[in-house]
Amino acid sequence: MPTLYEQLADALAQRIHDGLLQPGERLPSVRQTCAQVQVSPATVFQAYDLLEGRGLIEARPRSGFYVRKQLKRSAAPALAASPREDSTPVAVSELVFEVLHSTRDREVVPLGSAFPSPTLFPLDRLARDGARAMRQLAPQALTTELTAGNARLREALRARCVRQGLRVGPDEPIITNGAMEALNLCLQAVTQPGDVVAVETPTFYAALQALERLHLRAVELPTDPQLGVDPDGLAEVVQQHGVAACWLMPNFQNPLGALMPHARKQAVMDVLRRSGTPVVEDDVYGELHHGSDRPLPLKAFDTEGQVLYCSSFSKCLAPGYRVGWALAGRHSHAVQKLKMMSSLATSVPSQLAIAEYLDEGGYDRHLRQLRKTLADSLSQLRQLVLKHFPKGTRVSRPSGGYFLWVQLPEGVDTLQLHRQALAQGISVAPGALFSADQRFRAALRLNGGHPHDARLQEAIKLLGQLARP
Amino acid sequence: MPTLYEQLADALAQRIHDGLLQPGERLPSVRQTCAQVQVSPATVFQAYDLLEGRGLIEARPRSGFYVRKQLKRSAAPALAASPREDSTPVAVSELVFEVLHSTRDREVVPLGSAFPSPTLFPLDRLARDGARAMRQLAPQALTTELTAGNARLREALRARCVRQGLRVGPDEPIITNGAMEALNLCLQAVTQPGDVVAVETPTFYAALQALERLHLRAVELPTDPQLGVDPDGLAEVVQQHGVAACWLMPNFQNPLGALMPHARKQAVMDVLRRSGTPVVEDDVYGELHHGSDRPLPLKAFDTEGQVLYCSSFSKCLAPGYRVGWALAGRHSHAVQKLKMMSSLATSVPSQLAIAEYLDEGGYDRHLRQLRKTLADSLSQLRQLVLKHFPKGTRVSRPSGGYFLWVQLPEGVDTLQLHRQALAQGISVAPGALFSADQRFRAALRLNGGHPHDARLQEAIKLLGQLARP
Repeated sequence: MPTLYEQLADALAQRIHDGLLQPGERLPSVRQTCAQVQVSPATVFQAYDLLEGRGLIEARPRSGFYVRKQLKRSAAPALAASPREDSTPVAVSELVFEVLHSTRDREVVPLGSAFPSPTLFPLDRLARDGARAMRQLAPQALTTELTAGNARLREALRARCVRQGLRVGPDEPIITNGAMEALNLCLQAVTQPGDVVAVETPTFYAALQALERLHLRAVELPTDPQLGVDPDGLAEVVQQHGVAACWLMPNFQNPLGALMPHARKQAVMDVLRRSGTPVVEDDVYGELHHGSDRPLPLKAFDTEGQVLYCSSFSKCLAPGYRVGWALAGRHSHAVQKLKMMSSLATSVPSQLAIAEYLDEGGYDRHLRQLRKTLADSLSQLRQLVLKHFPKGTRVSRPSGGYFLWVQLPEGVDTLQLHRQALAQGISVAPGALFSADQRFRAALRLNGGHPHDARLQEAIKLLGQLARP
Repeated sequence: MPTLYEQLADALAQRIHDGLLQPGERLPSVRQTCAQVQVSPATVFQAYDLLEGRGLIEARPRSGFYVRKQLKRSAAPALAASPREDSTPVAVSELVFEVLHSTRDREVVPLGSAFPSPTLFPLDRLARDGARAMRQLAPQALTTELTAGNARLREALRARCVRQGLRVGPDEPIITNGAMEALNLCLQAVTQPGDVVAVETPTFYAALQALERLHLRAVELPTDPQLGVDPDGLAEVVQQHGVAACWLMPNFQNPLGALMPHARKQAVMDVLRRSGTPVVEDDVYGELHHGSDRPLPLKAFDTEGQVLYCSSFSKCLAPGYRVGWALAGRHSHAVQKLKMMSSLATSVPSQLAIAEYLDEGGYDRHLRQLRKTLADSLSQLRQLVLKHFPKGTRVSRPSGGYFLWVQLPEGVDTLQLHRQALAQGISVAPGALFSADQRFRAALRLNGGHPHDARLQEAIKLLGQLARP
């Protein structure tokens, strides 16, 4: 549950987004608010701090708190996109390959990267922990603990998920080669070639790639840029298209950053329970909330075992280790079988390093620091974009993760911009990656998880120039 | 090229298998043989040693060398099986899952395991090498060296393959999560759901699982238990069935142990070049030759880039590390794209440990020791099986790897035997795993890569009792 001050902050944020509090308008005084909502002054201050941290309000010395003025030009509704009404085959992989490949040069400013800066992770400790655990490992464990993964890591994960409010069976966690493999295996477990799968609008390109690889068709769901998939729209699509499965990212959706509120998650699960539709849930950003509480995943609202939950350590702890996991509910056996058939098992040194790290303690402390760093860094990037990008640019305002979704004025082609920027040593993720039919040609996803050095600031300035219509 | 004494040994082995030298018959004296084939006495002694090591002949004090008597009951031709003539959909995974799962108890005698004993590998050195390499790694490499793998490991592999006679492009190696992932990606790169794929008879179950997962149909190739796939039979099947791809294991085929001679590899590639059929080559046992020379893979005979070569370190150096690779010829781009789409990248700690190990040197010395251990241990297992199994049992005689293929008298059901044996704490790989229609119900694959302790000897004795018709 969110704390009292978070609830208050969320309610005020909603009023700001709904236009009930206008940019430049003064917020009620702390005393007024205390009286109105029956909370202590400390709670109100905490809420205002949070909103300031999110860049929604600003404090003016000896005057009080005001809704920030930049807000107007980036009002969220302008980011909304209409979903396509028909289902489409998918062939996005060549473009994704080209873009990702081009952004893997270490000299390039990594605004198009999918990962935060690797310098944010406890890599030395992981290396030491891994070495110690490997030396202590009974050799037999290398060939007996195969498909589902290392028992110690599975148990540590289970315990952590249970603490976060999930019901997880003792044998449910299946360790995979990153979330990417988990998502692919889960999707395959509940579909056959030719099936229709419902995805968000816009969608993470890996979902589109998975559909393409498995010969599936995509149908788009109405998706609010702040609140995620619309439950009524979902119900309609599921009914109309005979959807075999959904692929959703309810926490800090990539690329929008949308966070589905609790009530909406409940409503989404009600729809899917009635239709009996399995849902592949991608929760890789769930731990990277900027507020104080970890949002629950859809799986917390799943009573029928129909959610195939996937996550990983690649964005939170150990990039490059390629350790992810699936909690596949009643599809666990099918997913484990597919894992055995497609890659047999996950790297033991990687699994053990993380198991040892989790057992030694300090993961939550690391996460607190990481969240703070990413929240600050994303907020700075947002300010830079608002400063340097052309008039008419809309920018998302996520409360977790490290991506910005930037909507440029009509007429700008971000595929072209991507090529121009790359020629200048800057990578971006063009909007065309995020739909089956390469729409969102005027949008960009920018990575705010890297240090704000002079090079990055120069890069944003240059992008702003390239982005002029 | 085989050495002179290996050529001589091979020629004599052929005469024995062909019945030109009968069990119990005395071999020509060393002096006679020297005169006949124009080689030195040392060469003849070496050849006779090799044959003795393979269990084909025995030295009798002050009398000379004789063809072993047990040979008759295990003559190779009796292992031959007729391929099915039609193509079939595949659904073997549930059985494989059940069998493999049941054999992953550390207390079970691992005769059904797919891995040699993990105690045969330099695990401590790998752990140390891995830790050192991880400490020295630039953090950025964790997220920039993604899909195709670590540059240092790719280059070490390329250099090794080139030394072994392969033409490999500088960017050709793609590092994968074990050979299993490499094989799956390669097969998917050259097929579409519904396609027909030609496999050996019997076939490694992972090939059948891959076909099942990708919705492909299997057609079986005539396969000699010693020499592998018959080129004429292959030509016929390719023509009749519109085969989209072949999946072959020309070196020490699993489960038969067959080694395709050079000339046959050339002939197979001639057939496939004419038809333009891509071939997925599984060479995971190629390094585990018991003779002195590493057999060439099919890829060495490939002039058109149509071989998608796959191998790994899981059976030679680093079980549990899950590091394999593909050399996919002209399908490299497609395989790399599929890798990105299905698991993004391979574990960096695992890749680095192996890269560091290879650079530090000693791999070939380790391999020499491993080959000798496996050859001895397999030969001992063979003797035990011949001693304890019922009359009418035929046993393969591989010149590499660590598997025996054991054909029991008709009427024995090895699926039932597998269950009875497991109840006694012994695992075996029942023959039904090795074909799409669960034939080979009277055959077993036994793993000879584990130490011959008293428990193993007791296990073989017990299996021999259970195997009575």
